Amino acid sequence: MNVLIVYAHPEPKSLNGSLKDFSVKRLERAGHVVQVSDLYAMNWKASLDADDFPGRQAGARFDPSLDSKHAFENGSQSQDIALEQEKLRWADAVILQFPLWWFSMPAILKGWVERVYAYGFAYGVGEHSDTRWGERYGEGTLAGKRAMLVVTTGGWESHYGPRGINGPIDDILFPIQHGILYYPGFDVLPPFVIYRTSRIDEAKYAEARDALGQRLDALGTTAPIPFLPQNGGAYRIPALTLRDEIAPGRTGFAAHVA
Amino acid sequence: MNVLIVYAHPEPKSLNGSLKDFSVKRLERAGHVVQVSDLYAMNWKASLDADDFPGRQAGARFDPSLDSKHAFENGSQSQDIALEQEKLRWADAVILQFPLWWFSMPAILKGWVERVYAYGFAYGVGEHSDTRWGERYGEGTLAGKRAMLVVTTGGWESHYGPRGINGPIDDILFPIQHGILYYPGFDVLPPFVIYRTSRIDEAKYAEARDALGQRLDALGTTAPIPFLPQNGGAYRIPALTLRDEIAPGRTGFAAHVA
Repeated sequence: MNVLIVYAHPEPKSLNGSLKDFSVKRLERAGHVVQVSDLYAMNWKASLDADDFPGRQAGARFDPSLDSKHAFENGSQSQDIALEQEKLRWADAVILQFPLWWFSMPAILKGWVERVYAYGFAYGVGEHSDTRWGERYGEGTLAGKRAMLVVTTGGWESHYGPRGINGPIDDILFPIQHGILYYPGFDVLPPFVIYRTSRIDEAKYAEARDALGQRLDALGTTAPIPFLPQNGGAYRIPALTLRDEIAPGRTGFAAHVA
Repeated sequence: MNVLIVYAHPEPKSLNGSLKDFSVKRLERAGHVVQVSDLYAMNWKASLDADDFPGRQAGARFDPSLDSKHAFENGSQSQDIALEQEKLRWADAVILQFPLWWFSMPAILKGWVERVYAYGFAYGVGEHSDTRWGERYGEGTLAGKRAMLVVTTGGWESHYGPRGINGPIDDILFPIQHGILYYPGFDVLPPFVIYRTSRIDEAKYAEARDALGQRLDALGTTAPIPFLPQNGGAYRIPALTLRDEIAPGRTGFAAHVA
């Protein structure tokens, strides 16, 4: 497979850096072709702004969504954005690897999503009408590809448990796994999470590395999270609420998993 | 009151820009003193990296957390970071205003959090032992201050309802309201959310503006979301899980609201 790792940590000698290097070797040894978007090393521009669309009329009111649409259609996006879209098209599987900072991805990675996920590429795809709300949540440009998060946290696993103070890890990652990965079509594999990173000694590192290795070995075969596709009959359109007979009586993120 | 608005939209002539200008006027007219951190206008540096700590040893391994701790203690943080911390100390109430991009805040605002929320300022505050896990979630440097989100979304309100496809808005905002605002001590007011922004005409704009005005008028009196404080007896320490008698049988974000 072609595997893209989008990696966001500022220090190569960190736990994240080691795990990223390990992943590249493990995947290549298994015969995969790997590209890494090392966002800090690339000095990735994090903030979406009018400079991302060099073809636009100077002085015109900037509309992040419409300017993205026009630039994507006309091939006038900033070159760094187009290159990342090309990597996504090339990839059969995408890994986002990052430390959990303030219960989400680092800003530099969030800015990768905002800038690379153009209108017409990751959203605004397909028919939009009273009966169709585009190709998204299970359909879209990236359908058929697999994606997985590799995440490190300083907190303990119990802090992210069902009744842990930070909230359950699956709920914290839902806006990313469902809202950023499933949205443009990815099949999303369960995340690989390493907790309590400040207390990792050599033995624990070896354990985490081996567990990650097994997940990488199974990248092509692991069953994805069974999120409900938008256009598979589970949702009323255009209200986009679950039909009564789907997960009856349930609310919240988990209701969108079959 | 002293009110700080941290605002993240790249276009002054946008809906967000208009609402921000309106908020400043409304608050000033009520006798408050207002400062605005207009992140795009400030060309705010979004990515946390070693450059944020000019006093550190060149070539040393960069540790985002420990380098932040040392720089905060030694007063050697980057000047832009120290200035924002000063504004937070000055403020009695803080408003974060932003468009919801990919189910979270824009990268530029996430980077404001990551860089301004130093170790010793917003986390790593207070005693850390087997029986205390610091002053956080209801205690901390920013305790006694109020905070509120002002958020715009393109999607409909039903899409963000209890059974809406994007997930409930309260759950989407939980990592921000609980994990970023309540964590260092803020009392967090219910969010002000405007949906379906692409279809806002003059009448709907006036309606949204007036509703926001009422929320601003009540900034000092609105009851905060009753998140459970970490050190108030609801949690086991250090596991930091809810005690059995608190929200019995419930899991997920909502279990942390009294």
